[in-house]
Amino acid sequence: MTLGIFDSGLGGLLTAQYIKAYAPGVRILYYGDTAHLPYGDKSPQQVQAYAQEIVRFLLEAGAEGIVVACNTASAVAREVIRTEARDRPVWDAITATLQQFKAEPPAFPLGVIGTYTTIRSGIYGEAIRAYWPGAQVAELATPLLVPLIEEGFADHPATHLILETYLSAPSLGGIASLLLACTHYPLILEAIERYYAQRGQGCRIYNSAQLLAQAVVTNLPAATSSVQGEDTFWVSDYTERFALLAARFWGSPILLQKAPAFVGGVERKW
Amino acid sequence: MTLGIFDSGLGGLLTAQYIKAYAPGVRILYYGDTAHLPYGDKSPQQVQAYAQEIVRFLLEAGAEGIVVACNTASAVAREVIRTEARDRPVWDAITATLQQFKAEPPAFPLGVIGTYTTIRSGIYGEAIRAYWPGAQVAELATPLLVPLIEEGFADHPATHLILETYLSAPSLGGIASLLLACTHYPLILEAIERYYAQRGQGCRIYNSAQLLAQAVVTNLPAATSSVQGEDTFWVSDYTERFALLAARFWGSPILLQKAPAFVGGVERKW
Repeated sequence: MTLGIFDSGLGGLLTAQYIKAYAPGVRILYYGDTAHLPYGDKSPQQVQAYAQEIVRFLLEAGAEGIVVACNTASAVAREVIRTEARDRPVWDAITATLQQFKAEPPAFPLGVIGTYTTIRSGIYGEAIRAYWPGAQVAELATPLLVPLIEEGFADHPATHLILETYLSAPSLGGIASLLLACTHYPLILEAIERYYAQRGQGCRIYNSAQLLAQAVVTNLPAATSSVQGEDTFWVSDYTERFALLAARFWGSPILLQKAPAFVGGVERKW
Repeated sequence: MTLGIFDSGLGGLLTAQYIKAYAPGVRILYYGDTAHLPYGDKSPQQVQAYAQEIVRFLLEAGAEGIVVACNTASAVAREVIRTEARDRPVWDAITATLQQFKAEPPAFPLGVIGTYTTIRSGIYGEAIRAYWPGAQVAELATPLLVPLIEEGFADHPATHLILETYLSAPSLGGIASLLLACTHYPLILEAIERYYAQRGQGCRIYNSAQLLAQAVVTNLPAATSSVQGEDTFWVSDYTERFALLAARFWGSPILLQKAPAFVGGVERKW
């Protein structure tokens, strides 16, 4: 099967890696919307406009299903994406997380950390309480983690201090589990685990990128067979830094191709 | 005089504030391109396309001169902006800094810190060495400072640690002066001064936002009189966080208006 995966940037390559690890026969068409990142600070309308164009592009490129690796786009553009994809399957980070949680419920209170737009949407708390009425869900925006990770500061003492400031927020006090609701956060999983271990606070950490990949692989059509053709990686803006980031998230260097930048419904020529 | 001032986001409001302080009769038309921020990670071509549309918009709105508060746009889009502005005066952060330096030369070696795109352009070093051949200029990208400042972490211990990592880079060792080549950095001026004071290292700090405002005011047409009409502040994307940031940079709350988002040469309707 050929899967179209997109993200605001290159963090979604982690999700793509998980999918390849679970289902090596899948072919990946990846789109990183680097011309418009970060999505996490933008308005829902803006993110919806970008997502719609990207889905259209990936389907035209041959995608038989769409994976929305970006939590922000999953939070505010799921409906737009489903409409655009028509009869093709769509997996988004939020629906996938819910599906995995239903199979194996998390302990509550549950903390959720992500970007401003994801958290402000309130979508995780809403979806979880729709299934487990009265469940305690504390959502906190932790916007500095993405730039710190992208700059390679995941192990820097400053990152530990900032994590401490975020994770010690009163709203997250006493949580029994924590959902990392952003593509980038798996890269600071160890630092987060260390935070709770040092305090002797048992807290199970869930990683939405991994839950999404599991949901994709669980729901792949039974007849799925290996697909010929290379994995392809497009970005809407290219700099050397994006190439470095891609290598960091994918685990080895990959060829990034410049996609036509779709903006406001109009295709721009490079 | 009515001045059109633009920036990738809201940091340029600091420059606008300096200009108002020096020349209270000036009317400000401000454009923060929040739909496309940050510019500092994007390619020169992308930044040029945005800058061109914004200048066109500001001139149509009545600007009699253009101030490019954004160092990134100043670094990579000066030519495009001058062409678009035709016979109207244009002040950009880099030309202004040079002009002020020529009047009062900085001590060398000079360090320059800014975003990736500003630093990668090499424009400051190039312009300074064109005037002072052989001058030692060390340019360093310090991309985490903008998000830290925007998140209100200017005084957080993590910011001091990150500043320490940046300022102790071998290339900045032994500098006699340091140019803050980003609209946001004045907000961590004290932390930077403390870094050098604690080490007993005499280092004069220059602030490009202030140098730009000085250059604007120095070069205002002699006949400039006070202008009727309110200052107006447009943003290309609006969230509550942008309103908070605007208040932080301007010093008090201001009304942000949604501008038509110009993308790829096409006007989008909201």
